Amino acid sequence: MTEPTPAPDEPTNKRRFSRRALFGATGAGVVVAAAGGVTAARLADDDSSTSNVVAFRGTRQAGIVTEAQDRLHFASFDVITDSRDDLIDMLQRWTAAAERMTRGDETVDGGAVDHGEYNPPADTGEALGLDASSLTLTVGFGPGLFGPSASDPDRPDRFGLASRKPDALKDLPAFAKDAIEPSRSYGDICVQACANDPQVAVHAIRNLARMGFGVVSVRWSQLGFGRTSTTTVSQQTPRNMFGFKDGTANIRAEQTDVVNRWVWVDPADNAAPAQWMTGGSYLVARRIRMDIEPWDRANLSEQEAIVGRTKGAGAPLGMTREDDTPDFAVATADGPMIARDAHVRLAHPDNLNGIQILRRGYNFTDGSDGFGHLDAGLFFIAYCRDPDSQFVPMQKQLASKDAMMEYLTHNGSALFACPPGLQPGEWWGQHLFT
Amino acid sequence: MTEPTPAPDEPTNKRRFSRRALFGATGAGVVVAAAGGVTAARLADDDSSTSNVVAFRGTRQAGIVTEAQDRLHFASFDVITDSRDDLIDMLQRWTAAAERMTRGDETVDGGAVDHGEYNPPADTGEALGLDASSLTLTVGFGPGLFGPSASDPDRPDRFGLASRKPDALKDLPAFAKDAIEPSRSYGDICVQACANDPQVAVHAIRNLARMGFGVVSVRWSQLGFGRTSTTTVSQQTPRNMFGFKDGTANIRAEQTDVVNRWVWVDPADNAAPAQWMTGGSYLVARRIRMDIEPWDRANLSEQEAIVGRTKGAGAPLGMTREDDTPDFAVATADGPMIARDAHVRLAHPDNLNGIQILRRGYNFTDGSDGFGHLDAGLFFIAYCRDPDSQFVPMQKQLASKDAMMEYLTHNGSALFACPPGLQPGEWWGQHLFT
Ligand code: HEM
Ligand code: HEM
Repeated sequence: MTEPTPAPDEPTNKRRFSRRALFGATGAGVVVAAAGGVTAARLADDDSSTSNVVAFRGTRQAGIVTEAQDRLHFASFDVITDSRDDLIDMLQRWTAAAERMTRGDETVDGGAVDHGEYNPPADTGEALGLDASSLTLTVGFGPGLFGPSASDPDRPDRFGLASRKPDALKDLPAFAKDAIEPSRSYGDICVQACANDPQVAVHAIRNLARMGFGVVSVRWSQLGFGRTSTTTVSQQTPRNMFGFKDGTANIRAEQTDVVNRWVWVDPADNAAPAQWMTGGSYLVARRIRMDIEPWDRANLSEQEAIVGRTKGAGAPLGMTREDDTPDFAVATADGPMIARDAHVRLAHPDNLNGIQILRRGYNFTDGSDGFGHLDAGLFFIAYCRDPDSQFVPMQKQLASKDAMMEYLTHNGSALFACPPGLQPGEWWGQHLFT
Repeated sequence: MTEPTPAPDEPTNKRRFSRRALFGATGAGVVVAAAGGVTAARLADDDSSTSNVVAFRGTRQAGIVTEAQDRLHFASFDVITDSRDDLIDMLQRWTAAAERMTRGDETVDGGAVDHGEYNPPADTGEALGLDASSLTLTVGFGPGLFGPSASDPDRPDRFGLASRKPDALKDLPAFAKDAIEPSRSYGDICVQACANDPQVAVHAIRNLARMGFGVVSVRWSQLGFGRTSTTTVSQQTPRNMFGFKDGTANIRAEQTDVVNRWVWVDPADNAAPAQWMTGGSYLVARRIRMDIEPWDRANLSEQEAIVGRTKGAGAPLGMTREDDTPDFAVATADGPMIARDAHVRLAHPDNLNGIQILRRGYNFTDGSDGFGHLDAGLFFIAYCRDPDSQFVPMQKQLASKDAMMEYLTHNGSALFACPPGLQPGEWWGQHLFT
């Protein structure tokens, strides 16, 4: 283990254990991608796992159209204080720490071990020695922050935000077959941490939770071990726990017009008090348990009929390649080639008045369910400009007609308003609170 | 997406979607490491993440002294049949599938999509396109398989194995401050899946669980997102959720004498009927919740005093480098430099009559605990030749004296007997059942 030589511009003691220092002169070598941009930064001639930094500030929040990282730690927080000042103070401290962590640094300079021997370390330290791993931290605000909501009708407007609430920000309606558990649902603030190293994502959430002591508490959190989405044209499509390619027909970052139409909130979408959301996006989270044992007993042809695509190539039924366009009109002797209750038929824009959403989900496995089965599924995340006219009608159609629903249980649900990106000096929620 | 050209020696239809085929001619390029050997195989001039295969058969089971992979999925199964034949049949099918999966293949050739359209696919498919990722599958048998045990005294000897039970295979005793939950503890058979891609580890456990339908059911399972151990001299020491380097003073695969003395069961250890364990090892699993919030409020010097090492470098207190040897005799005005109740003092062989164990644990985060905190900790795995004279006295000493116990809750516990490795043609448990 060789100690890196300190850079001349930083005092030795501060630099010694910084996450960056452990990798030497990365400060010079790191390529920074535009926030909301297309690909995570990579050092062209280096191991791509050692220096990836996604820019924290920019027009958009990172972590939405950013090339989907492999791992997720998602946390939903309840605000437990009534003090607006304390909440703002925490959001300011969070912003500074988040910016540092996405760079691959500790929450504060030298936080883990150079913060004073007789102080609690300012950084918990478990990411020391790990690089940025394309970490993105995306913040969102839930309906409950603004006063009463469907899931908590008696909640007071503690922070005087009721007038700033966008119409779109309200608890999702109940859908057919919903089995929503409040302990896995809702929340006042969310942070989505995505990274290519799970320890980096877990470290980020844990340190934010810690910095929020007395202001927020963790309502629920979810680890995702593998992405089920592709958000850029160059990404390979991963597979979900049903064994199918997932993310094929997703919106791609490069489709600027589509993204502007379906992902980013437009100035015309809100009255003046809710203009803080212009350029942001609504995050829908659904914890969907997948009943993998019965699924595994279904024939290949049944599985493919349910999805509407082939399992191997991921091609629309009747086609051969993943990127072939589905043709819903093709008929066989037994009815349409892509069945009337097939998932991709019901979810396709042609059958939803053109509606699209940006999917950004993750596979999960949370131990066993106490009945001898793995508790596995999809932590579904979608971003959209207006949940009411995008996610809601889509999920309504799927919940009532999709053949796949026989194998799914939606047991967690949440909606958050994710503001646009931060300009230099700005903090998370600034335009909401000021 | 280019389809690889089929190799001339394999029929096109079988090869088309095999996990291997998706990566082209890996069959030729893969370097196979000796089971129980030191490093996972790597293609020298390739991305190390695309072709790692650890040999499945050999003198030892892989996954014990094998270079610790980054991710874990551990499953404990209850045997739910009384049929010895069905159990043996499953173990034989498991062995064949495990051997294939560790090579990066599906559970059966073409299992996910070429197994017949009107059959349930023989492989669940979510690892299609992923490589072997150094997957190891390590099997172990719990006390309950052999009849009555401390945790289940009324259990009949369903499989006529009572006489084959090694003396060492019995439920661990209760330790001070234990808070063991049966739903996270015990089990008849375990499979430890370690890999550098979590989806590969999850896929393996899920497919074994599935193949065991009617014979076993999942009692509990645990995902570990980051290793906390080093098992070879070349591995960097990772960090645990207290932010400390973990694995520094671990046994290393290269220390042949130490490994033979403390890890592998010796012929002299057992009477004839239990000789099936010769060359094997006992796996101790402890799910240890770490109370990270109070820990995070402790001063750096308190944290370091509790561990007995520095947080930054991981050096023994009073020293500067991670690999310096601790000197427990050094005194300060306030008492010993490494406190009497420091974790590493109490766990060190000098203070335990020379006892050593091989640690192979993983960090976990399982959502939140319902009280606003992350449910995070260490899934402690240790291998030893004789738990009674190694793990038990060590944990007894730690449970009653270790200052760290203030921040720990052991809520899961299990012990499994892991037989030696398999010779060609052998199956998991063969020398136990025959
Ligand atoms: C566990 C639950 C789900 C599973 C396993 C699943 C699986 C899939 C699969 C395999 C595809 C085809 C490949 C692709 O285009 O990505 C797909 C497409 C799609 N899914 Fe899902 N999905 C689930 C839930 C949902 C939900 C809740 C929604 C939205 C309410 C949704 C919306 C879509 C959309 C919009 C498409 C693309 C349809 C198209 O334009 O072709 N899915 N899904
Ligand atoms: C969450 C619980 C635990 C944590 C956070 C923890 C942490 C640590 C740390 C930071 C070290 C020093 C670095 C190293 O040598 O690896 C260490 C060493 C060690 N730990 Fe633990 N440990 C835990 C539980 C246990 C348990 C249950 C045992 C065995 C009963 C154990 C046995 C050891 C041993 C044998 C050493 C090496 C001591 C030496 O020879 O210097 N630990 N542990």
